[in-house]
Amino acid sequence: MTVKLHCFGESGHSYKVALALELGPLDWQPIFVDFFNGEARSEAYRDLNSMGEAPVLVDGDLTLTQSGVIQAYLSEKTGLFGGDTQQEARDILRWTLWDNHKLSSQIGVLRFMTNFLPAEKRSAEVIGFLTGRAKSALAILESELTQRDWLVGRSVTNADLTCCSYLFYPEEYGFTRQDWPAIDAWLARIEALPGWKHPCELMQRGFAA
Amino acid sequence: MTVKLHCFGESGHSYKVALALELGPLDWQPIFVDFFNGEARSEAYRDLNSMGEAPVLVDGDLTLTQSGVIQAYLSEKTGLFGGDTQQEARDILRWTLWDNHKLSSQIGVLRFMTNFLPAEKRSAEVIGFLTGRAKSALAILESELTQRDWLVGRSVTNADLTCCSYLFYPEEYGFTRQDWPAIDAWLARIEALPGWKHPCELMQRGFAA
Repeated sequence: MTVKLHCFGESGHSYKVALALELGPLDWQPIFVDFFNGEARSEAYRDLNSMGEAPVLVDGDLTLTQSGVIQAYLSEKTGLFGGDTQQEARDILRWTLWDNHKLSSQIGVLRFMTNFLPAEKRSAEVIGFLTGRAKSALAILESELTQRDWLVGRSVTNADLTCCSYLFYPEEYGFTRQDWPAIDAWLARIEALPGWKHPCELMQRGFAA
Repeated sequence: MTVKLHCFGESGHSYKVALALELGPLDWQPIFVDFFNGEARSEAYRDLNSMGEAPVLVDGDLTLTQSGVIQAYLSEKTGLFGGDTQQEARDILRWTLWDNHKLSSQIGVLRFMTNFLPAEKRSAEVIGFLTGRAKSALAILESELTQRDWLVGRSVTNADLTCCSYLFYPEEYGFTRQDWPAIDAWLARIEALPGWKHPCELMQRGFAA
């Protein structure tokens, strides 16, 4: 049965799941969420996810939200990306929580503010604040990836798939791969995985490219 | 063996775990982290947790970081707060990720900025931004708790323990329980649990009360 993913191209949180589906590979279909025109705040969408967020995965009778929950579910289904031991599974959850708290959460909003929000609504102070938070998180990621090829264990896991997601977008928000050599090399390792695709190849964009 | 928790009173993330330990109850001991004087950025602390965050749990040979990871571990150990079914366990992880991304993360920084950061370093625009984010999250929590007594299942779980943590602090940051009646009633249910204690009864504060 085809798995359906409610998602959109600019959503790094959707990409965490879309990339896991594509690398699986699993039979899946993206369903475009018109996030920038408020679809995620509509009553119909709130019935799908009361948190008003993308992605949402529908697999037969099962509906799941929160990218980290969906990633864990897909690992149960495929045996992939979930780690080989209990310690690895805990480490993957550790990075998933950290990413949702400190990395993707900050970068997602920063990128929105510097690219998608109308210029007159942007606040330089808020952008400066978010840039500082994002750089602190990137420094921790860089330090970790200086010591190892993958965040957990010896191959790609959900820890990598969650942390990498926003870093493939081309929009300017103060992140340049060359400034972070260990992150750059790790992103290149992810891009070299068989079946890897860019977020906007996997999911429809809300804004024109 | 006594479980050790590296923590401090002002840390809502530490409180998520301290409260689970106290409600268990488990034999545990808080170890004060002098966060506001930079201890979490020290080399010794980075050896304990490369992410430079509290809490850190040490149980014999096992060291765990990220409150959501530690909460899940304690549930394995005690059989408490982890939900009764696979669906409940997924829902608990869903709320834990949402809380780390949208609720505690925003409120923790907002409360820091409005209470602990020297006045001359505060930015009204950043405080306004974080207040908006916090209120959006509180509205989702309020809506959910209008429909049920506990976030997942029929009794308290880690979903409640993660989401409630910052809401017990008395410092002013724009949250007043009376404005959110369903959240207020839910916090009262948590306070009525046998063994419940306020964060600053369980852990030493960094700032004088």
